[in-house]
Amino acid sequence: MNLTLMSDFYELTMLRGYQRAGFRNKKAVFDLFYRKNPCGNGYAIAAGLEQAADYIENLRFGPDDLDYLSQTAGFDGEFIEYLRDFRFTGDVLAVPEGTVVFPNEPFIRVTAPIMEAQFLETALLNIVNHQSLIATKAARVAWAAGGENVLEMGTRRAQGPDAGLYGARAAIIGGCGATSNVLAGKMFGVPVRGTHAHSWVMSFPDELTAFRRYAEVFPDACVLLVDTYDTLRSGVPNAIRVFREMRERGASLKNCGIRLDSGDLAYLSKKARKMLDEADLQEVVISASGDLDENLIGDLKTQGAKISVWGVGTNLITSLDCPAFGGVYKMACEIGEDGAQYPKIKLSENPEKVTNPGIKKVLRLYDVETGKFKADLIALEDESYDASEDLTIFDPLATWKRMTLRAGEYRIRELLVPVFAGGKRIYDSPGTMEIRANCRAELDTLWDEHKRLTNPQIAYVDLSQRLYDLKDRMIAEARKA
Amino acid sequence: MNLTLMSDFYELTMLRGYQRAGFRNKKAVFDLFYRKNPCGNGYAIAAGLEQAADYIENLRFGPDDLDYLSQTAGFDGEFIEYLRDFRFTGDVLAVPEGTVVFPNEPFIRVTAPIMEAQFLETALLNIVNHQSLIATKAARVAWAAGGENVLEMGTRRAQGPDAGLYGARAAIIGGCGATSNVLAGKMFGVPVRGTHAHSWVMSFPDELTAFRRYAEVFPDACVLLVDTYDTLRSGVPNAIRVFREMRERGASLKNCGIRLDSGDLAYLSKKARKMLDEADLQEVVISASGDLDENLIGDLKTQGAKISVWGVGTNLITSLDCPAFGGVYKMACEIGEDGAQYPKIKLSENPEKVTNPGIKKVLRLYDVETGKFKADLIALEDESYDASEDLTIFDPLATWKRMTLRAGEYRIRELLVPVFAGGKRIYDSPGTMEIRANCRAELDTLWDEHKRLTNPQIAYVDLSQRLYDLKDRMIAEARKA
Repeated sequence: MNLTLMSDFYELTMLRGYQRAGFRNKKAVFDLFYRKNPCGNGYAIAAGLEQAADYIENLRFGPDDLDYLSQTAGFDGEFIEYLRDFRFTGDVLAVPEGTVVFPNEPFIRVTAPIMEAQFLETALLNIVNHQSLIATKAARVAWAAGGENVLEMGTRRAQGPDAGLYGARAAIIGGCGATSNVLAGKMFGVPVRGTHAHSWVMSFPDELTAFRRYAEVFPDACVLLVDTYDTLRSGVPNAIRVFREMRERGASLKNCGIRLDSGDLAYLSKKARKMLDEADLQEVVISASGDLDENLIGDLKTQGAKISVWGVGTNLITSLDCPAFGGVYKMACEIGEDGAQYPKIKLSENPEKVTNPGIKKVLRLYDVETGKFKADLIALEDESYDASEDLTIFDPLATWKRMTLRAGEYRIRELLVPVFAGGKRIYDSPGTMEIRANCRAELDTLWDEHKRLTNPQIAYVDLSQRLYDLKDRMIAEARKA
Repeated sequence: MNLTLMSDFYELTMLRGYQRAGFRNKKAVFDLFYRKNPCGNGYAIAAGLEQAADYIENLRFGPDDLDYLSQTAGFDGEFIEYLRDFRFTGDVLAVPEGTVVFPNEPFIRVTAPIMEAQFLETALLNIVNHQSLIATKAARVAWAAGGENVLEMGTRRAQGPDAGLYGARAAIIGGCGATSNVLAGKMFGVPVRGTHAHSWVMSFPDELTAFRRYAEVFPDACVLLVDTYDTLRSGVPNAIRVFREMRERGASLKNCGIRLDSGDLAYLSKKARKMLDEADLQEVVISASGDLDENLIGDLKTQGAKISVWGVGTNLITSLDCPAFGGVYKMACEIGEDGAQYPKIKLSENPEKVTNPGIKKVLRLYDVETGKFKADLIALEDESYDASEDLTIFDPLATWKRMTLRAGEYRIRELLVPVFAGGKRIYDSPGTMEIRANCRAELDTLWDEHKRLTNPQIAYVDLSQRLYDLKDRMIAEARKA
């Protein structure tokens, strides 16, 4: 399906207006960034770049799109002719997917004729907001689960097919070990898991028969759902019987387990673990599902629940407690036909909502000794930094908060990498499992204090002196006018 | 894109198991229903049937799907051969989209060979849960707005492209007057609206020039966003100047307006209305956007805000305070090869979670005199009811709560209509705007008490005596075993 028209109508009215205003050759720079971490988290995970790049690369108005815009939406011939040849011809930089990002950092930067740059707004935000939201939520859930496996299994409650599919992708990026969504497995090369539902048990005369049949068909990965009738009096004893029969037949039980899906998971898992151990079935693992999220997983672990695989559905795939990621797309600079830059700023009564003007880059500063994250620095594109010199950075809202990084003791990484140049896609997206590994490595550079689920330590995101001065001057000028 | 694989993996493992267990000719009946209204609402709006039917109709495993299932997922040849010819051959009944539904009523009923019926679970739930959620939320928002126009404009914060697209469809069904999503407008024939963003204003030397240019290009629908710099000191005065210039040129202002997008909307709208009226611009309407939902709209109206068009984004398109609809898909009956019915029940410690067994229909009972909804009755398929006889119904959890409807004073409507018969799609879905009109007519049959946003009166959903007795007997038998 051609998604070109997946756009707010106002992008098109603005394009028509820009065309009439003679802006075809005017260029603009837009930043995609967000202002507030979702779910009270200390960071976000950037995701969705691959699909956003697909959208940009495939951008073209088909004949039926043009018919619709002309006949139903009422656009005139001159504009329709312009749209007929519409392609993206600009540059895009972005942080690689799986990168940790913080508020106010441009994590996608588009430089293009203003009409093209403007038109990308709706689709880029839609794709990136969604996947970054779910990846961030998944990172929280995976953090709560410690090293234990988390399975994404929310497709049935996702907000439509794409939310299930790309949500599964983002969940894997953020740290889930597998998804239940088969299409996601096929499209993204990620592990897929699943066993059986209550309906399996209900379609046999009794639970024991249902379990036996399942074990016959899937001896190598026999996970039995034990709560259809009564978990401790029926489900677990029947599962134990079947596992012992399997062992007698010489089967390995190392991928076998039971799944708890209702009731008090702490109590039931401890009881079930005891029953399994007493039956000499130590290798049989206990998985659990049922309205799990990062908070409940943390609580259950605190209570000593004997669960080692966590199936997370609705709460993850919708990011239930915070189902929207507030990414925005704001003009940062205009570029005249002569190449001159005209930085742009959007004011607000709220200081945190004033945008950062100009063409910017993001530098991540790491401590050389520990390898850990120190701070991010947003600077103007043409500034250069050298880790062999001391660097003093400061908080843009409380400028007396300063920190000096000593030459040789810190390392600089530029976060934005080229994705499109002159309309050509020049970035090969890594596979989803590689992105996941990159994300995990990136998270390892954060201190635990930043990853705490509640009231995390806020990471430093500072502005360079030149950017700070530019912003300060533009605010003063705007207020004078 | 072929969505066949948009399924939880466990549907496939169960199918493989059913095949091995020799269940190919066994039939089953599954009900899709939900247990709790979203957002504390008094009802839900069923939506998504057209896309669910598309999924069922197009169900087939392509060669690359089969390769994936064989090579990566490890299914054996016998099963792959079965999937190669897999088509839906069963029957589906459903309530038409836009119908008001209540907890525990089957609103989609599937009768098919158990392997086919089982396989539909994930996709049906995904599609129907999403659209029913957004349609219900939209009905709440539209209710809060009274007769005033509500625009859906949330695509950028939707959970992926489908969430924006089908969310827009569902929002229109539930009562929105238009969407910003152009693709939705094209695909579903629904009204599309939009004007300009802050970036339009920022790309001209000053706000007045930006407004003038916009008015030149769109004289017939000139809605100006007035909060880029300062709403009352800059935006509204500049808009007034441009509207007066338009009037001097002889333009009609009847589709012109201003849009408030930040600040206190009650205060600003009253001030702006006064300024517009004093400039003799009574016909210029005020629209508002910015984190609106049904509660804030209600509050603003209570405070006398002078807003007549409401643009609702994130809160609607994600159903922010309740982003998942809890539809489930449960086996209600098995049908043997001889046609004998074996009703199925799923027990739970929670009485409200015990399923209703058997093949069922839903009767809606209306009062003839008022035309208003009286109660719903879930009955067994083979029961017949005649409105020329008295009918006594009772609450299934408090059986002493009884009500007798007198012959001739009530009217019966069967909610479920045939959608597929023998695998053939036999239902023509109405257009989205017709579904919207049906939904509105249906909502008009509800008393306001059921539509109140907070603590609404719970609608009666009763079980027929025969269904009640069947359920009671099956619970007793199960507990004995």
